[in-house]
Amino acid sequence: MQRLTGADATFLYTQTPNAHMEIGACIVVDAEALPTGEALLRHTLDWLQPRLHLAPMMRRRLVRVPFQLDHPVWVEDPGFDVEYHVRHVALPAPGTFEQLGDLVGRLMSRRLDHSRPLWELYVIEGLDGGRGATFMKTHHAAVDGVAGFNLLASMVDLAAAAPPPDPPDVQWEPEPIPTDVRLVADATANLARQPLRGLKAARRLARQVADARTKHGSAKVVLGELGAPETRFNGTIGPHRRVRYFDLPLADVKAAKKRSGAKLNDLVLTVVGGGLRRYLERHDELPDAPLIAFVPISGRVPDAGGTDGNQTSMMYVALATDEDDPATRLARIAEASAAAKAVHADLGPSALVDLSALTGPALAAASLRLVDTFRLLERTRLGGNVVVSNIPGPDFPLYTAGARISGLFPMGPIGEGTGLNVTLLSYLDSLGFSVVADRDLVPDLDDLVDDLRAAWKELDSCL
Amino acid sequence: MQRLTGADATFLYTQTPNAHMEIGACIVVDAEALPTGEALLRHTLDWLQPRLHLAPMMRRRLVRVPFQLDHPVWVEDPGFDVEYHVRHVALPAPGTFEQLGDLVGRLMSRRLDHSRPLWELYVIEGLDGGRGATFMKTHHAAVDGVAGFNLLASMVDLAAAAPPPDPPDVQWEPEPIPTDVRLVADATANLARQPLRGLKAARRLARQVADARTKHGSAKVVLGELGAPETRFNGTIGPHRRVRYFDLPLADVKAAKKRSGAKLNDLVLTVVGGGLRRYLERHDELPDAPLIAFVPISGRVPDAGGTDGNQTSMMYVALATDEDDPATRLARIAEASAAAKAVHADLGPSALVDLSALTGPALAAASLRLVDTFRLLERTRLGGNVVVSNIPGPDFPLYTAGARISGLFPMGPIGEGTGLNVTLLSYLDSLGFSVVADRDLVPDLDDLVDDLRAAWKELDSCL
Repeated sequence: MQRLTGADATFLYTQTPNAHMEIGACIVVDAEALPTGEALLRHTLDWLQPRLHLAPMMRRRLVRVPFQLDHPVWVEDPGFDVEYHVRHVALPAPGTFEQLGDLVGRLMSRRLDHSRPLWELYVIEGLDGGRGATFMKTHHAAVDGVAGFNLLASMVDLAAAAPPPDPPDVQWEPEPIPTDVRLVADATANLARQPLRGLKAARRLARQVADARTKHGSAKVVLGELGAPETRFNGTIGPHRRVRYFDLPLADVKAAKKRSGAKLNDLVLTVVGGGLRRYLERHDELPDAPLIAFVPISGRVPDAGGTDGNQTSMMYVALATDEDDPATRLARIAEASAAAKAVHADLGPSALVDLSALTGPALAAASLRLVDTFRLLERTRLGGNVVVSNIPGPDFPLYTAGARISGLFPMGPIGEGTGLNVTLLSYLDSLGFSVVADRDLVPDLDDLVDDLRAAWKELDSCL
Repeated sequence: MQRLTGADATFLYTQTPNAHMEIGACIVVDAEALPTGEALLRHTLDWLQPRLHLAPMMRRRLVRVPFQLDHPVWVEDPGFDVEYHVRHVALPAPGTFEQLGDLVGRLMSRRLDHSRPLWELYVIEGLDGGRGATFMKTHHAAVDGVAGFNLLASMVDLAAAAPPPDPPDVQWEPEPIPTDVRLVADATANLARQPLRGLKAARRLARQVADARTKHGSAKVVLGELGAPETRFNGTIGPHRRVRYFDLPLADVKAAKKRSGAKLNDLVLTVVGGGLRRYLERHDELPDAPLIAFVPISGRVPDAGGTDGNQTSMMYVALATDEDDPATRLARIAEASAAAKAVHADLGPSALVDLSALTGPALAAASLRLVDTFRLLERTRLGGNVVVSNIPGPDFPLYTAGARISGLFPMGPIGEGTGLNVTLLSYLDSLGFSVVADRDLVPDLDDLVDDLRAAWKELDSCL
């Protein structure tokens, strides 16, 4: 039994019926060497079983504390049943990336069962070009971007015929689900030991914000004070998602980086800004003020790596969508991004981590639920106009269940007031884009993908 | 805007997070004449669009009245989007009925979105033998068994190249979602007009039950007083389902009916009783008392046909699972079934229909939610040990979207305390069985299917 940290629990408290705070990844493989049909499902289960101990969250379920007196705990699930989690499905012909996106979009629209370990894995056959895919989803409370990458790492090998990992030192043992009496007793003891925990954290965060505001006051880049404009991406979201994947040649992106001297992250933000500008302009909805990107960054301290859990923080960057010229847009984004990073360095990585300590879990959950009820988030726009998450990936080939991986597409969550998420991962010779949107806010997601591609071409040609 | 009847609304009030009260049907077709891949999806949409007006619930969504002052209303959905409802997926090779059951089981485990019209349709490719399938699901609040059959009927043609039906006399018009103010005003006016509605209905039902009890007192067949024994099928259900389909040759079943002089429904109940006896005996869990089947029967008055909505009632029949000899079991079931029908005739079809009027919707929903919270249903066993629903189907071929239908498998809901549902439909030369079970209560549903088949063989050979 292990209690969630405040940061991990935050993703549970901020979850609403529609913003389920789930993340996923689609692994595209060359399926020619794999068995097909029922044999493929058995093959995948046989491959996965000796790897389950690499990611403890795969056999742990959440148990909530009565009256939310404290954060929930993880318990080694006594009802663990791997066949519940691993499912098998196929794409209809011809098996395009768009059909894969449609399927994954539906699977991302469905909430995980919180009475079981928080993951589902789909073995997907029938992608065109002799390819297949594995789609895995989990909850943001179980893994952040970096720990999610660790989970992904436990799902991959460095060779097609890699031997299974060493068995765990200690055999896995299920735990009994703790009784409500025990959970309440533990929580009460915790509260008695640390009565000032929430208060102290709140005071520390307030001081950091005040300090940062004094220093960078005029820039207004602190905690969303940039004032993101109203756009269609920021309405109230529903439970349904659209998903699209595409990629750019990494060599071209790196050449543009070299020619311009810009950072890869700023190039990416410029492509997203350019794509959104095109999309909104065509809809006659481009606001005067620039759109704001919510950019998660890893606040994990290096030696804490290898464990599950969250150490993510974030910064806000104006995307210069009011600027038509891509080179000028890049320059403005590079400047805004550098300023945001300076603020972030002063604020420290604890900003998001400590937010949940401000009011204690019960109050946080209750007030967030109220916010949901009154749809205030739609107006307060906590998260910027769009989430843009850029994760550096490996440049050497990876394998899963004996098949060579040809594409890796991680997907981040969308939330109330932020109905669009663009997550990027470089892998081998590609820079992959995973775009997740609310189904109704962005009915024409294919057009937005075209706009992102066009924005890249335009930027590339002028650098 | 149309208000739900008390009977339809009952299925909403009795819905719990795990007992979602959803029903579905799987239509198996010969797919050789159909296009494949993306062309099949377009073909299906083109076929469906001119038929939408045949089943008004397909474009109507529920709107709940604030504080549940009255039953919810149906509104012609202003956000109707047929592409949300129609989805496309394929089975992995080899495409067995078991793989179809696995897929449908997952789709039945997922709750419908109640902010949209209450249906989803999946075009499924890749069933073996050149076959395909259409799986459609909806909510029991929108259709009962008979109206569900009407919905199914609107999905089928009498010829492969049947022309589309006549267009509606009046073009479909979306309605604005009524404001909370209007909903409350309407509900208050209704309450003012009919202050005694609930009281009168409660008094009428109580009198009917008392009368029936006096007359058939010793038989104890009234409203679940049979005292269903404890079995694994009657624990607390989770959100997940298992689904299996199989069929028996209808000619063999009819021959056995003729030889024995028994009713088809009693033969079917004897097969189910025999299968459950075998299954529980092998698990060393066979109770001394006979299992009780909850048998929905149509209480619809003949001239009210053709409309959506519910007129279903039910009876309880002891399945003589304490009896080893199949012929004796059949005789006991025939007797119990005749007695239950006599009680039902006295009680009238209004029993279930009026239950929701007992306390008014707000109280009904609140008390049922309490029941769920305290898991009392697990002990009170409102629904018998198993639901057995036998629907006579057509003996002539039907077609859907230009393809000949080779199998029709409707599926009923399971509920708290009743984790197993067997629904039968005769079609052409087959008697199809659809078995829906809670995923955890019946982990070995394939074995139960074998037991049902074996029970039929045993019964057939001794008649």
